Amino acid sequence: MVIVMDLRAEEKQIKDVTNRLERLGFKTHLIRGVERIVIGAIGDRKEIVSSGIEMMPGVEKVVPIMKPFKLVSREGKTEDTVVNIKNFDIGGKDIAVIAGPCAVESREQLMETAKLVKEAGAKAIRGGTFKPRTSPYSFQGMEEKGLELLAEAGDATGLATITEVIDEASLAVATNYVDIVQIGARNMQNFQLLKAAGKIQKPVVLKRGLSATIEEWLMAAEYIMSGGNYNVILCERGIRTFETYTRNTLDLSAVPVIKQLSHLPVIVDPSHATGEWRLVAPLAKGSVAVGADGLLIEVHPDPVKALCDGPQSLTPNNFSVLMQELELVAKSIGRSV
Amino acid sequence: MVIVMDLRAEEKQIKDVTNRLERLGFKTHLIRGVERIVIGAIGDRKEIVSSGIEMMPGVEKVVPIMKPFKLVSREGKTEDTVVNIKNFDIGGKDIAVIAGPCAVESREQLMETAKLVKEAGAKAIRGGTFKPRTSPYSFQGMEEKGLELLAEAGDATGLATITEVIDEASLAVATNYVDIVQIGARNMQNFQLLKAAGKIQKPVVLKRGLSATIEEWLMAAEYIMSGGNYNVILCERGIRTFETYTRNTLDLSAVPVIKQLSHLPVIVDPSHATGEWRLVAPLAKGSVAVGADGLLIEVHPDPVKALCDGPQSLTPNNFSVLMQELELVAKSIGRSV
Amino acid sequence: MVIVMDLRAEEKQIKDVTNRLERLGFKTHLIRGVERIVIGAIGDRKEIVSSGIEMMPGVEKVVPIMKPFKLVSREGKTEDTVVNIKNFDIGGKDIAVIAGPCAVESREQLMETAKLVKEAGAKAIRGGTFKPRTSPYSFQGMEEKGLELLAEAGDATGLATITEVIDEASLAVATNYVDIVQIGARNMQNFQLLKAAGKIQKPVVLKRGLSATIEEWLMAAEYIMSGGNYNVILCERGIRTFETYTRNTLDLSAVPVIKQLSHLPVIVDPSHATGEWRLVAPLAKGSVAVGADGLLIEVHPDPVKALCDGPQSLTPNNFSVLMQELELVAKSIGRSV
Amino acid sequence: MVIVMDLRAEEKQIKDVTNRLERLGFKTHLIRGVERIVIGAIGDRKEIVSSGIEMMPGVEKVVPIMKPFKLVSREGKTEDTVVNIKNFDIGGKDIAVIAGPCAVESREQLMETAKLVKEAGAKAIRGGTFKPRTSPYSFQGMEEKGLELLAEAGDATGLATITEVIDEASLAVATNYVDIVQIGARNMQNFQLLKAAGKIQKPVVLKRGLSATIEEWLMAAEYIMSGGNYNVILCERGIRTFETYTRNTLDLSAVPVIKQLSHLPVIVDPSHATGEWRLVAPLAKGSVAVGADGLLIEVHPDPVKALCDGPQSLTPNNFSVLMQELELVAKSIGRSV
Repeated sequence: MVIVMDLRAEEKQIKDVTNRLERLGFKTHLIRGVERIVIGAIGDRKEIVSSGIEMMPGVEKVVPIMKPFKLVSREGKTEDTVVNIKNFDIGGKDIAVIAGPCAVESREQLMETAKLVKEAGAKAIRGGTFKPRTSPYSFQGMEEKGLELLAEAGDATGLATITEVIDEASLAVATNYVDIVQIGARNMQNFQLLKAAGKIQKPVVLKRGLSATIEEWLMAAEYIMSGGNYNVILCERGIRTFETYTRNTLDLSAVPVIKQLSHLPVIVDPSHATGEWRLVAPLAKGSVAVGADGLLIEVHPDPVKALCDGPQSLTPNNFSVLMQELELVAKSIGRSV
Repeated sequence: MVIVMDLRAEEKQIKDVTNRLERLGFKTHLIRGVERIVIGAIGDRKEIVSSGIEMMPGVEKVVPIMKPFKLVSREGKTEDTVVNIKNFDIGGKDIAVIAGPCAVESREQLMETAKLVKEAGAKAIRGGTFKPRTSPYSFQGMEEKGLELLAEAGDATGLATITEVIDEASLAVATNYVDIVQIGARNMQNFQLLKAAGKIQKPVVLKRGLSATIEEWLMAAEYIMSGGNYNVILCERGIRTFETYTRNTLDLSAVPVIKQLSHLPVIVDPSHATGEWRLVAPLAKGSVAVGADGLLIEVHPDPVKALCDGPQSLTPNNFSVLMQELELVAKSIGRSV
Repeated sequence: MVIVMDLRAEEKQIKDVTNRLERLGFKTHLIRGVERIVIGAIGDRKEIVSSGIEMMPGVEKVVPIMKPFKLVSREGKTEDTVVNIKNFDIGGKDIAVIAGPCAVESREQLMETAKLVKEAGAKAIRGGTFKPRTSPYSFQGMEEKGLELLAEAGDATGLATITEVIDEASLAVATNYVDIVQIGARNMQNFQLLKAAGKIQKPVVLKRGLSATIEEWLMAAEYIMSGGNYNVILCERGIRTFETYTRNTLDLSAVPVIKQLSHLPVIVDPSHATGEWRLVAPLAKGSVAVGADGLLIEVHPDPVKALCDGPQSLTPNNFSVLMQELELVAKSIGRSV
Repeated sequence: MVIVMDLRAEEKQIKDVTNRLERLGFKTHLIRGVERIVIGAIGDRKEIVSSGIEMMPGVEKVVPIMKPFKLVSREGKTEDTVVNIKNFDIGGKDIAVIAGPCAVESREQLMETAKLVKEAGAKAIRGGTFKPRTSPYSFQGMEEKGLELLAEAGDATGLATITEVIDEASLAVATNYVDIVQIGARNMQNFQLLKAAGKIQKPVVLKRGLSATIEEWLMAAEYIMSGGNYNVILCERGIRTFETYTRNTLDLSAVPVIKQLSHLPVIVDPSHATGEWRLVAPLAKGSVAVGADGLLIEVHPDPVKALCDGPQSLTPNNFSVLMQELELVAKSIGRSV
């Protein structure tokens, strides 16, 4: 890290700072500029967090140089991570599409959707069973009954299955039924849940928090990996900005940025990001072109009657058309769907 | 709600929409404008959520008219809620100051701080025992051992005690030791935790999420109240914006807005909002002048050595000076500290 | 518009509001709900702006129903606008790429760049001559001398030319030299400049402001069109958010949203949005896939020595490779570059 | 500045960077850490801007150490700047309140307001004469006729006068009539206007842009000061965030931050920030308590009939009550209104 001393820092203050740094195990380099003194400090990044240097008299600011994450970093592992799931991979050459309804509502709804998205080319079926809802008066999910239906749909179609977990209890139940667990945007910094997800064997889709920086998102992935689970798939799903025409602002730049910073695969959820089915197709194509390893798309056999998020769901027919378009875009960049 | 039909909506589509609304139990009013047809629908707001109207052909948009919250609303309860805690109130004429270190680190550190903030006029001592940290490599808190120390500090000084809980397990433990539990910004939409907090008897300080709108924040309070716990204290602690000089942007406008919309008391945490102790005093005074019912202020006997958030902690001496200044500002608006 | 009356609004207040609305020329419809009274008002949207209804006793809020823009709206003109420029179109089947350096620096630099981007397939050359710079100590542009060079480069290569104008004076000069004028993000609500741009005959590229909503952006285009200049090309270039890994957050959702709301063509500038040349290629491909009608890309023969924005400039070689990739992506969605 | 080299930077690349830095006149210090090499470079900050170092092979990032502003900085001038205006000061012990209508609408409206705000204790009257409006169909201001009325109101009451200018032409006219000119939020980075404002003798109120960081705002002030006009008053008026209950989010933390970074006075405009008259009084009191040197408050004799921004205007009576409250708050922090 670099310590910038105040314009009027006294020699004694400079000495106190270098002494403290050296006691903490850092090597220091004093750089005397025209207007200011800057101290370069070399050592273990973990010590910096609680060094207290920022509070010492004469210190103007502390500029960290090292990135705070390790296991997720491409610096430590240069080749891409490929996560193996049942019958397919995420992070390799093929782009994986995960599709299904916002919520599992009934056996009939789920089986019908599973069959249709399978035919259209999806690799996995999604379906919410534990629903985190903004309002306590909204439908809260079918819970374990929904998980049973998901497992049944997976068996019947050969699709992998994924559902969102919202705490340690739902995580424990879900791992008995599904192939992938998802941690939602609102729980991206639910550190208890991240720790628990670090101890399971199944792949985890980690959605970006609504107001999470890319660095915080990677630190959340670091939590899971530091627990021993290396099968983390990042999912961009829009960030909160001042723009209100779309529910959130899909940050497609995050895809190539993640590819620079990390070896982990990254997928995109255009349905939740926009909240509007008409925008899903163009943004799905844009996601593929920008380098995403997969997509998470809401499909409902009858969006008008959906118990949640109908407005952002594609009909099976629209989804089928989109899959054909995606195949063409994927080919144009040397990949396939 | 109001349904705005598309410019080119056909008569049949209009009819389908009104029919569906009426089957859902709404009374409808058709307003034929110069360019557009608008349908007013009157009925139970809970039905609207899953009405699917937004997806019907010919519908341009649905504009909700009613606010989605009920129990927190000032419309249903016009007089201010006053929450009684041990030896003081929040939400009445007096402004309550809660102070203490970011984390409970040791018996000595906590006892010393408790004594000093009590002398300066604080009503409660805060101290983190379960720490939600961005990095898995940071200090994670003393947990139950810290709670014991908090209880001891409360007994010794007569101060009320408060700590942050991060899941149902820590909530269950904490309620055995402290007078108030706090739900942090990152857990504001941890709905499992909110539901659990709705079933305890103790007051809950509910911090605003980093990217939570005021409406979402009130809906989170609604979760707690709908479980039966009416002792909710809202705490503004800064929102995430593009500005980086301060850690977050303290939204002091939220204080009078909350007072308009809700009967619940609202306090302010200038320490976490700014991340910089030099900004705490002016913003604490601003918070009082703008109408806050209390303050949450970080105080540490030796900020340089603090295990977390030293840069935003006041020394006991600075805190003591601030308390005297706050008393003057409070008096100027007819209140006291 | 819809007027929502306060829960406790009195009959007299309701009457006053409807009377005032009717005097302003609106037809009113009273809708008596279970908890609230809502008034639907039909009439000229221009009257609403200064109706003062929002201030009347008993009024809780006024909800506008109509969009505030007219000439830019797809409702009034359903077919896409195609802007004709010298030797090419923007808004038709072909995707137009405009390339060149951030600033015109010298004859040699510009001629070399023009030749190279022309060979790679660009349709127009860009080059800043009047530079709006955040710091008064930065290079401020070659002004008219730069315009002469741009015109020369256009003549020599057959490329169309474009430069940014920053006030009425630079607009007046620039129209003598270039084929397209650009209004930058910082001037998107410089209404004097917008009015002046409404009186010229040449096409205008209107960049989205850093914190402009899509609606405000369209209103800025409305300013230009209401002056009589219908050749407006919208350019998405990133909005300001909390994320700092990229300079701004490129909002690719804005492209299909604009296509829904307006008939105007929309292009994307991935160079300014990200500030990092490594991100330009993936986002350029994403822009094409999402439906953009063109791209604005910074190319510099020697980015290390560029007087401005070197870090976001492609080398001619990288640009040439990108153009071949873009052609494939464009084909995959039935267009060409 | 500090140059962080890539993890895998080669010795030749390091050498190339230090060579280039030295040719640009910097002294360099090489710091070899455990994982990375960092180069400290000391020299003229202006050279850094176009050094191109960021683009050189092997460079990961360049971290600037020095702040980019000079004349506005408190480092160069430690004592507060006090701006003298007609009969009062801004930046001294007294807090100056500037009040008046959003727009000058008529002689009667302005004279009445001027008389009433003068009685209540305001020091200056504001009134828009050149109106930058989001919609081309809104009232655009009385222009020079309005300036004549402002001057008349100033003469009749002894109040100083202030109006917003929107380009060089309106600036030139306004300086003939008013005591202070205001540059609005949308023009904060209209660099032509800033340069022109640097050449006049009259004080300039510089509003913060909707999405301007504090650093960009100070750089805009630097533009004016670098032209020779040192009488700059900064005005916080809310930034754009995701919150929609208030029009913008008033960033009161900016007040003490500006006081740390700069010697310039800073005032607050709670009317434009919130857009809601009910919020003006609490936020005006908060602004004073947080350390603002003045306030800009909208007052209209009949807000219901105002041609613009009625909903955020106080009645003269409400303003008068507020002034008495502000006097008490000011006294509590050792100042007066």
